Amino acid sequence: MKPELGVCYYPEHWPEAMWADDAASMVETGLAWVRIGEFGWSRMEPQPGDLQFEWLDSAIETLGTAGLKVVLGTPTTTPPRWMLDKHPDMLAVDAQGNPRKFGSRRHYCFSHKGYIDECVRIAQIMGKRYGRNPHVAAWQIDNEYGCHDTTISYSPSALLAFRYWLMDQYGTIGDLNEAWGNVFWSMEYNDFDQIELPNLTVTEPNPAHVLAFRRFSSDQVVAFNKAQVDVLRTHIDAPLLHNYMGRVLDFDHFEVGADLDIATWDSYPIGFLSDRLEASEEHKTAFLQQGDPDMQAFHHDLYRAVGRGRCWVMELQPGPVNWAPYNPAPLPGMVRLWSLEAVAHGAEVVSYFRWRQAPFAQEQMHAGLLTPDNRAAPALPEVRQTAEDLANLGEVHQTTAQVAILFDYASDWAWTTQPQGAGFDYFRLIFSAYQALRRAGLSVDFITANDAAKRQYKLVLGPGIATLDRDVERHLKDRSDLTVLGPRSGAITRDFQIPKQGRPGLNCLDCNVDMVETLPPDVERAVEGGGAGKHWIDRLSGTAQDLLSFADKTPALKGADGFWYLAGFPDTDLWDRIVAMAAQDTGIPLHPMPAGLRRRETTDYEFLINYNAEPVDWNGHTIKGCDVAILKRNPPGQS
Amino acid sequence: MKPELGVCYYPEHWPEAMWADDAASMVETGLAWVRIGEFGWSRMEPQPGDLQFEWLDSAIETLGTAGLKVVLGTPTTTPPRWMLDKHPDMLAVDAQGNPRKFGSRRHYCFSHKGYIDECVRIAQIMGKRYGRNPHVAAWQIDNEYGCHDTTISYSPSALLAFRYWLMDQYGTIGDLNEAWGNVFWSMEYNDFDQIELPNLTVTEPNPAHVLAFRRFSSDQVVAFNKAQVDVLRTHIDAPLLHNYMGRVLDFDHFEVGADLDIATWDSYPIGFLSDRLEASEEHKTAFLQQGDPDMQAFHHDLYRAVGRGRCWVMELQPGPVNWAPYNPAPLPGMVRLWSLEAVAHGAEVVSYFRWRQAPFAQEQMHAGLLTPDNRAAPALPEVRQTAEDLANLGEVHQTTAQVAILFDYASDWAWTTQPQGAGFDYFRLIFSAYQALRRAGLSVDFITANDAAKRQYKLVLGPGIATLDRDVERHLKDRSDLTVLGPRSGAITRDFQIPKQGRPGLNCLDCNVDMVETLPPDVERAVEGGGAGKHWIDRLSGTAQDLLSFADKTPALKGADGFWYLAGFPDTDLWDRIVAMAAQDTGIPLHPMPAGLRRRETTDYEFLINYNAEPVDWNGHTIKGCDVAILKRNPPGQS
Amino acid sequence: MKPELGVCYYPEHWPEAMWADDAASMVETGLAWVRIGEFGWSRMEPQPGDLQFEWLDSAIETLGTAGLKVVLGTPTTTPPRWMLDKHPDMLAVDAQGNPRKFGSRRHYCFSHKGYIDECVRIAQIMGKRYGRNPHVAAWQIDNEYGCHDTTISYSPSALLAFRYWLMDQYGTIGDLNEAWGNVFWSMEYNDFDQIELPNLTVTEPNPAHVLAFRRFSSDQVVAFNKAQVDVLRTHIDAPLLHNYMGRVLDFDHFEVGADLDIATWDSYPIGFLSDRLEASEEHKTAFLQQGDPDMQAFHHDLYRAVGRGRCWVMELQPGPVNWAPYNPAPLPGMVRLWSLEAVAHGAEVVSYFRWRQAPFAQEQMHAGLLTPDNRAAPALPEVRQTAEDLANLGEVHQTTAQVAILFDYASDWAWTTQPQGAGFDYFRLIFSAYQALRRAGLSVDFITANDAAKRQYKLVLGPGIATLDRDVERHLKDRSDLTVLGPRSGAITRDFQIPKQGRPGLNCLDCNVDMVETLPPDVERAVEGGGAGKHWIDRLSGTAQDLLSFADKTPALKGADGFWYLAGFPDTDLWDRIVAMAAQDTGIPLHPMPAGLRRRETTDYEFLINYNAEPVDWNGHTIKGCDVAILKRNPPGQS
Ligand SMILES: [Zn+2]
Ligand SMILES: [Zn+2]
Ligand SMILES: [Zn+2]
Repeated sequence: MKPELGVCYYPEHWPEAMWADDAASMVETGLAWVRIGEFGWSRMEPQPGDLQFEWLDSAIETLGTAGLKVVLGTPTTTPPRWMLDKHPDMLAVDAQGNPRKFGSRRHYCFSHKGYIDECVRIAQIMGKRYGRNPHVAAWQIDNEYGCHDTTISYSPSALLAFRYWLMDQYGTIGDLNEAWGNVFWSMEYNDFDQIELPNLTVTEPNPAHVLAFRRFSSDQVVAFNKAQVDVLRTHIDAPLLHNYMGRVLDFDHFEVGADLDIATWDSYPIGFLSDRLEASEEHKTAFLQQGDPDMQAFHHDLYRAVGRGRCWVMELQPGPVNWAPYNPAPLPGMVRLWSLEAVAHGAEVVSYFRWRQAPFAQEQMHAGLLTPDNRAAPALPEVRQTAEDLANLGEVHQTTAQVAILFDYASDWAWTTQPQGAGFDYFRLIFSAYQALRRAGLSVDFITANDAAKRQYKLVLGPGIATLDRDVERHLKDRSDLTVLGPRSGAITRDFQIPKQGRPGLNCLDCNVDMVETLPPDVERAVEGGGAGKHWIDRLSGTAQDLLSFADKTPALKGADGFWYLAGFPDTDLWDRIVAMAAQDTGIPLHPMPAGLRRRETTDYEFLINYNAEPVDWNGHTIKGCDVAILKRNPPGQS
Repeated sequence: MKPELGVCYYPEHWPEAMWADDAASMVETGLAWVRIGEFGWSRMEPQPGDLQFEWLDSAIETLGTAGLKVVLGTPTTTPPRWMLDKHPDMLAVDAQGNPRKFGSRRHYCFSHKGYIDECVRIAQIMGKRYGRNPHVAAWQIDNEYGCHDTTISYSPSALLAFRYWLMDQYGTIGDLNEAWGNVFWSMEYNDFDQIELPNLTVTEPNPAHVLAFRRFSSDQVVAFNKAQVDVLRTHIDAPLLHNYMGRVLDFDHFEVGADLDIATWDSYPIGFLSDRLEASEEHKTAFLQQGDPDMQAFHHDLYRAVGRGRCWVMELQPGPVNWAPYNPAPLPGMVRLWSLEAVAHGAEVVSYFRWRQAPFAQEQMHAGLLTPDNRAAPALPEVRQTAEDLANLGEVHQTTAQVAILFDYASDWAWTTQPQGAGFDYFRLIFSAYQALRRAGLSVDFITANDAAKRQYKLVLGPGIATLDRDVERHLKDRSDLTVLGPRSGAITRDFQIPKQGRPGLNCLDCNVDMVETLPPDVERAVEGGGAGKHWIDRLSGTAQDLLSFADKTPALKGADGFWYLAGFPDTDLWDRIVAMAAQDTGIPLHPMPAGLRRRETTDYEFLINYNAEPVDWNGHTIKGCDVAILKRNPPGQS
Repeated sequence: MKPELGVCYYPEHWPEAMWADDAASMVETGLAWVRIGEFGWSRMEPQPGDLQFEWLDSAIETLGTAGLKVVLGTPTTTPPRWMLDKHPDMLAVDAQGNPRKFGSRRHYCFSHKGYIDECVRIAQIMGKRYGRNPHVAAWQIDNEYGCHDTTISYSPSALLAFRYWLMDQYGTIGDLNEAWGNVFWSMEYNDFDQIELPNLTVTEPNPAHVLAFRRFSSDQVVAFNKAQVDVLRTHIDAPLLHNYMGRVLDFDHFEVGADLDIATWDSYPIGFLSDRLEASEEHKTAFLQQGDPDMQAFHHDLYRAVGRGRCWVMELQPGPVNWAPYNPAPLPGMVRLWSLEAVAHGAEVVSYFRWRQAPFAQEQMHAGLLTPDNRAAPALPEVRQTAEDLANLGEVHQTTAQVAILFDYASDWAWTTQPQGAGFDYFRLIFSAYQALRRAGLSVDFITANDAAKRQYKLVLGPGIATLDRDVERHLKDRSDLTVLGPRSGAITRDFQIPKQGRPGLNCLDCNVDMVETLPPDVERAVEGGGAGKHWIDRLSGTAQDLLSFADKTPALKGADGFWYLAGFPDTDLWDRIVAMAAQDTGIPLHPMPAGLRRRETTDYEFLINYNAEPVDWNGHTIKGCDVAILKRNPPGQS
């Protein structure tokens, strides 16, 4: 696979007279792809049924003849204002019961049948018109599902659909009452029609109720997406894709991804560091203009799994954005660094958002490759340089890693529903594991519980996995040399009950959770020999060996052959110890990295990615600040 | 009185086959009481009118024949879902106007007549069925009034009831206008029907309006409770009780308590430290796994007054709970310590919540005496030990203290309505006084203004008492050697006006509040000789002697024979000075205590309660960490 | 002009028997003015149409014959409760969609036609009755527009009026779509009836939509005020005024002021420091009992411009207030200091709020000149002293300053709509400029963009001015020696688009904004030679000279003859450097002031105002703490 570059473009924002020049400039800059159309419904259909696709025909023709491959988006993320006159109840409703009004984007409820039909209609029209267009080389469905907290809706449509979904899941109301433990607090229902959405209750609703609603809400996204997939597949052969976001866990990306061909995502490294990462003030200041050194890699690796090996970056930040609390500029070199890093992690295409900064509306302060008055913005020369780098690089091929992280969206829904202690968060826990592996210089894969039956790794980490089926346990045991679970793994059933067999309820490890403690952020439990548990402590018993102990001699890590269970949320030092112990146990060679320097191996290359502003020396190489060193890999066995 | 132990149990959560074993184990553990039923309505009446009490008959029989005394709860805290079909408008409404929906508990408005009738109906059915059952030795009405902020409701039912209540209080609308000062800002009403509930106003509503609504809301709880009391009294002789909470001041517990026989409360020392106490980070960390050393004693003493001498702990925390921001485990010994401390303060029964941890629903992470899979949880052996300790201790009798605190729920409503300075809070002020007395090793009683006519103390503290009738002043003067009022005492009338005679408006002390200042938390006013005033400063004048002065020579404490008035909210040092001065004035011997060690005298014993994790030496005794030393008291006069 | 003192008085709150004594005491204290009536509607018209003005006749007569001049207020800020029965939909609606209920004040929507008619009716009745009354020497319309965030309403009335306003502004829906850039995110409308108010959108609404709504909302205040102006003008000759607030920018005070004769404002120095100023903890503690040394002067200078040279203080804080987070007392001397400072800045009348503290309702903890029980409060002797000082002072005349600040309410609306970085705020930026000028001992005028054509200054500062017309640029260039713009000046069009000519789009300076960065509060960009940019950084290019550079050599200040552009939000040191450079460039003599000491020149006097608690030496004078030194000015040229 030969990585390429692309850009997001909005012909409808600019005079048609500019299109050809824009297209030529894109090609000249080294871009091969251009994404268009995903916000264009009001121009495709200005009034209900009044289809006006000539401008889009022309745009595709202009871009295509210039040599660009087009990604065409269905515009269902932004229904025009007239759609609300047809479907006044199509809006999502927030937890306070207020409709989330027209006037920005993503103003629809995933459960509204009438709106889904409209989406299928417009997708069908587009599929028919452009399905065999030679310039249209890929299709994007909708845009950034879940952005602006839009997965969950408390609308009447959602309520109705939820009741049907529950009937389907539980069959009888008695079975539902039993599964949810509704005898507690006399919450038993006589009929599915009595069930409400779990908002605005006097105090915390039944977590089983909430988790069911979260599963339902995810399923609605999957079904919404699939409705367009099904109609498009009848008209097109090009790959279908969607652009996911960073740290959005509200729906199961693996399930949406299963219906698509490629997973793409929108990478805003500086905005994400500022608005969605727990980190010290010091860390945030050190990487203010670079982004967190692991956040992008994490998502590349995760979405490579979601795309079953195929992933892109659909939107890459080219300068200051408009939506984070603070919006500084990337340091010189960072746009290129992020691009090459994406390629190292498997991105087939890296596409920038956007070609030219818009002079109007919500994103007018969001930088592009060009300024609003059509001058080159700082990112443009970096993109040009990146295109040259990629040309020199040639083919890049991914290899299977030795280490995998077991990732499960439903675990986030469970622990968000009942965190038990403020500060415990599934993503945070998984990300801390990922960071530890990367500090050790390892390349990482993500797998689902389903993958456990099919994939083979030296080491699998599964912290925080809410539900652990016996089957999955067996597959992990069979196929990986070592699996490390805990804390809070195997802690509930699918219906949010503590498993009858106790927690974590493993067959291959005699280890029981007797009690759980959660701790304030300034309190930790020291582990003998270094490191500490924080936030969450499983108090363990059982005959499995104590591999590590807390200062009070209670177990911090218990293990038997091929299976370990970790009692607490590890701090940095404890993670490093666990990774070292696991590596020794499984014979994985480690490559400890300096702060801010990260490493990624492909078949032929070793990428050394320096997020620091200053140069770093490592292993005989000096990597400049905000730069990437790409080394030809030694033959296997000598790394 | 011989203190006993008990436990909360939910037979409806477990197979009937387990009940007998559970009962036997309870008895074997040393428990004498078991509370059941208070969340069981959906099992007692699964459909409207479909009464199914056989399971409860059987549970009572099983528990009773095993030797346990049953506390039977009316289940009105959790009406089943079908109740809402009968009474769709029975839900409380929050300050934003949203109904507080079904799906957890306490989902009712205290003012809804239809629901009150349902509660009377089910209480009558239970009273008839179990009123003479020999195993049912006490009755609990409802559960934790006011929990989850449920005292106040902005529902249509509440509005209607409020208007009638106002008519009853004020007679004519003109009198109401006059009493509230509605001429201010043209808020005058022409008719009671024009009065709304005081939410969602443009800016602060009239504090008289709010205080009336707070009084009304409290009265509605009293009436709600009394409706069940009245019907139960016709069928039963056993004592009636209710389980109050920690730091819930939204209704007048004395008034509810006047209709009941015993006051019980639910004591969660670790949760309360974390979620409802102002304290330094350092203090919270030091007592993270023990709870605040004064919080439990405070409530024992308060509820002993509410119960007119009779009090229990109905729910005691046996391990980590599920609802605080962070939920660590009690240190070993603490469950026993809390139990013995309760006994020292007069608890006739200490009952743990709950027998076995539920594997489902909201409280599945709330520890019990047993784990969900029926193994002993850490608290079980401590409870067993406590039972033995109590057997050895025998009878425990309370004595009247030398010191009392004047406590008044309406003062909290008043100062919550108009705090005047952030940080001023009635409970906080009272609690700081209580802590000072306990640092001095004193046992403390609580009294109401009504009690002032009947009870006699060497010293009465009445800081923050909003309204002070002439009668009460006279009784205090007559019956106590010294009364210390202020700050913010006698500051308003019942209708939230500044009294015509000025503030504090005392007959027996020439002392006037000329001006009030409130201060940011980091600013204080030093007192000459040590200590400082914080948060609130009454600027005083008058001929009464200046017993203490601020650094600028203005009065910090003024006094005449038997009556003192304190100008500011004292810090720790100032409280200690005032207590010492008052003790010297009244001849009360002090017993200064080390940090974390507390002392309580009963007729025969001196309890020394060590909340510290480490041992403490005091007065020739070494008290181990998390332990209680129980000393036979010296004959009176030698203490 | 000979400055006078006044007071706010509520005869309706006190027995008529007290009025004459009150009036005599006012006169005796040295007060010349008394404001009454503005909250009195429920007494003027207790039932719809039942007019009862006898009490007001009598009050005016009593006050007037005692020698006081009356300011009579129209009572439209507090419609009586019966008004809502006539106009149930007259309430404003908050952003969540809840009506803002009766029960305090300002409970009306500016767009409700029915209520506006009621206001005109009552104004007409009052105008007819008192228009020629010899004691009524001025009229106040309504009270504190915008207080309690009341400018903006999301009511149905507002929606309807907004649509008409948009039709009027844009003519066709196509022009509106174009002007707002609604093609972005398919936000295009087919009809004005489809436009909603910009609340409750899924994510940020179009800033053009919001800014239009903000302009509309301001226009509604102007129109509301003008309706009363128009009817009153037909009956009275006395000046019309309104009392504005501190740091309320939600409507255009210049436009309201254009219809009135005098601008007055309500000055609460201690409350404002606490509740509406960004400042360090240290600064807030140092001036806790004095208020910020620049806040009052700022508003005097601003409202002197709003009143086209005529301004009053209508309400001055005489002691602790009731509404700030903390409410300490003014240090002795401060009430007099604030009064004399107001006079120095042009106040014709300084009026205290209020005569006697009310013993009831919302403001019962708000100090007056008398206590509720009619004793002298601490401020009374200070007011008496101030009256003597003013008698000694005689005439005070204002001069035009050498320096002006360009002030624009719409810029605040724009930057509130899209701050781009948390911490960027228009008032904060302008205030920091004002503080820098005052640290340099300069007197300051405020001007609008319209004034630029008419007024002449050595130096004009225009930081943050959102929109800069070519005309205004030319007038600034022509009439001032030096204009300093930036940061974020000339950054958008009136319709919130980036100008086609780029930013700041100046003719007389070749300087372009290439990129904008916003920074967290703890990050700054050092400027070579001292000082730094914070919060906001315009990255500049262009041929204009770099007068200052950041440490990375990018421009911090660019300039050409008579026009400079500043790249970042300056910290204190950078502002001081810029003021010094500008002063040198324009020949303005500076008078650097010690902390807390401020200076104001009138024709004949130099006022030295010491906000510090301690004495300060300056220029050979010692000014006592909390005191004002008033020096006869040297003849021009020797200052
Ligand atoms: Zn995006
Ligand atoms: Zn409870
Ligand atoms: Zn005011």
